[in-house]
Amino acid sequence: MRVAGVSRRALEEDARGDGVVIIDQTLLPGRLALARLESLADAVRAIATMQVRGAPLIGVTAAYGVALALRADPSDASLARAAAALRESRPTAINLGWAVGRIERAVLGLAPSARADAAWQEARAIAERELLACEAIGRHGAALLRSGFAGGGGDRPLSVLTHCNAGWLATVDWGTALAPVYRLHDEGVPVHVWVSETRPRNQGLLTAWELGQHGVPYTLVVDNAAGLLFRQGRVDLCLVGADRITRGGDVCNKIGTSLKALAAREAGIPFYVAAPASTIDWALDDPAAIPIEERAALEVTGDADVPVFNPGFDVTPARHVTAIITERGVSGASAQELAALAGD
Amino acid sequence: MRVAGVSRRALEEDARGDGVVIIDQTLLPGRLALARLESLADAVRAIATMQVRGAPLIGVTAAYGVALALRADPSDASLARAAAALRESRPTAINLGWAVGRIERAVLGLAPSARADAAWQEARAIAERELLACEAIGRHGAALLRSGFAGGGGDRPLSVLTHCNAGWLATVDWGTALAPVYRLHDEGVPVHVWVSETRPRNQGLLTAWELGQHGVPYTLVVDNAAGLLFRQGRVDLCLVGADRITRGGDVCNKIGTSLKALAAREAGIPFYVAAPASTIDWALDDPAAIPIEERAALEVTGDADVPVFNPGFDVTPARHVTAIITERGVSGASAQELAALAGD
Repeated sequence: MRVAGVSRRALEEDARGDGVVIIDQTLLPGRLALARLESLADAVRAIATMQVRGAPLIGVTAAYGVALALRADPSDASLARAAAALRESRPTAINLGWAVGRIERAVLGLAPSARADAAWQEARAIAERELLACEAIGRHGAALLRSGFAGGGGDRPLSVLTHCNAGWLATVDWGTALAPVYRLHDEGVPVHVWVSETRPRNQGLLTAWELGQHGVPYTLVVDNAAGLLFRQGRVDLCLVGADRITRGGDVCNKIGTSLKALAAREAGIPFYVAAPASTIDWALDDPAAIPIEERAALEVTGDADVPVFNPGFDVTPARHVTAIITERGVSGASAQELAALAGD
Repeated sequence: MRVAGVSRRALEEDARGDGVVIIDQTLLPGRLALARLESLADAVRAIATMQVRGAPLIGVTAAYGVALALRADPSDASLARAAAALRESRPTAINLGWAVGRIERAVLGLAPSARADAAWQEARAIAERELLACEAIGRHGAALLRSGFAGGGGDRPLSVLTHCNAGWLATVDWGTALAPVYRLHDEGVPVHVWVSETRPRNQGLLTAWELGQHGVPYTLVVDNAAGLLFRQGRVDLCLVGADRITRGGDVCNKIGTSLKALAAREAGIPFYVAAPASTIDWALDDPAAIPIEERAALEVTGDADVPVFNPGFDVTPARHVTAIITERGVSGASAQELAALAGD
């Protein structure tokens, strides 16, 4: 997508090939600054402090993180240490463990001297795969939105509400939830996005920033406003990303997502989830088994005397999800329908 | 209630009797500062800038505001000007117009020289009435909570989720939604309050502050967390205030209230509204006719380039309200049941 008029990805390989360059998302939207990740420690810190965020981008960053660790030390112990450190850096997203596991398998049985390059190639393959997946999500999602809302918007643009940031900043490019939006916009379809602030980290400001950079019209609202917007008929559909999806279609995503889904159902508005198929945890039936990350109280209030509970995610039950848009196509949110998307 | 160890009300008459003293709520929770209101302009500004807030306290402040205007100039023109300026200072709460109307009726037909004192007496009567109403709400609400949740909490305290600030800061004393909480706490019943942050103005921080000052245990959460809290069984009931209630029991309250009510219903958790009977708009059937205040974009983000929609209130449909607690007793949320509470 475009930033300050030029094309950019959320993570790019360094020109010298010995590191990766990210946008430090903790500084957005106030300041656009790049950061180089040159070591395992850089990658772990970037994930834990949310310099990079969004399940797909976390996975890609973790993959490069293992590769960087193996560049410094290709031993078994180094590999095990890197895999453990990265897996613990954020607990909820499935992509992280999935990407680390792919690198582990790719270097399994290789001589230490061959591991770093193999890991780097695999990390690059994961990044390419994520990018293509997002592009395909955009294609399938745009088709779904075109067919479902053809002419329905009357004289106003197609109006999408999204929560958190599931745009290109959260992936490598395109985004998941925002991929169909960018696609429709690029095709000349008038689209408007209602951006939910997403307390406590205010990722909505990232969404606002990236939509603005690409020229997509949007309006920022507080998380509390969704019920009113829906009831006033200002929203045609909801479109969010996911951090983990159960076999049965329950969707773990940023805290507050489940309230939007509930309010959308109440108002008769479709609620779509867009995510790469790698987000589906085929081994998981019970959404209550998903670890819900609890983050620091200081994210909510700077007053250290105030007791705070700060969960990062919630689970939207499959029955509140109209459809799941993946790179393999659009599916209902049920075990039977999702099974058609299975495969590595 | 107690502040820094001493008893205090949200609005008190000045010892000299020529003004009222409020707590400047725009400075809380960071700083406790009092402010004197000595003129109509002071009162209008206090309401519009939310130095005072909460429907009952707005009403009382407006009443004293008319009295202050009449002290300066008891003419018909002055009365009309004061009533108009105060009615326009905040559009949504019914108490404001109700309180101003009471003062107008109290001075009707009086000689100009007698108006200021009559208005002051009437403002004092309104303040006393609000205080007694809140105390009675506390009594009725505490009885309801004691009976409904006797022994239900197991070994943990009775767990109440509230939104915005409907505590004593929003009234003269006791509060509306928090009155039953303070009463149970003072009676030695273990109570814990989940405090919803309430973006964009963060009135949850006011609730946290006043609960903390009085020694009631609480935990602050972002507005997005309600769905998760309910599903995890951490909340026994919701208890909120109201800015206006239709004849049929639809509840207009701080933006985001309707999402809590929806999520509570989904989780099988009772949703109670506590408000003085003066909050019920007996002439109003259609909740869509309630004017929803749109506030400044800067309340949401300091970035003036970001387009913002910032509605202050939403409407929770009567069917999502378990009961309404007033000073006249507890009522179901229907026209038939509420009618039993009618009368001035």
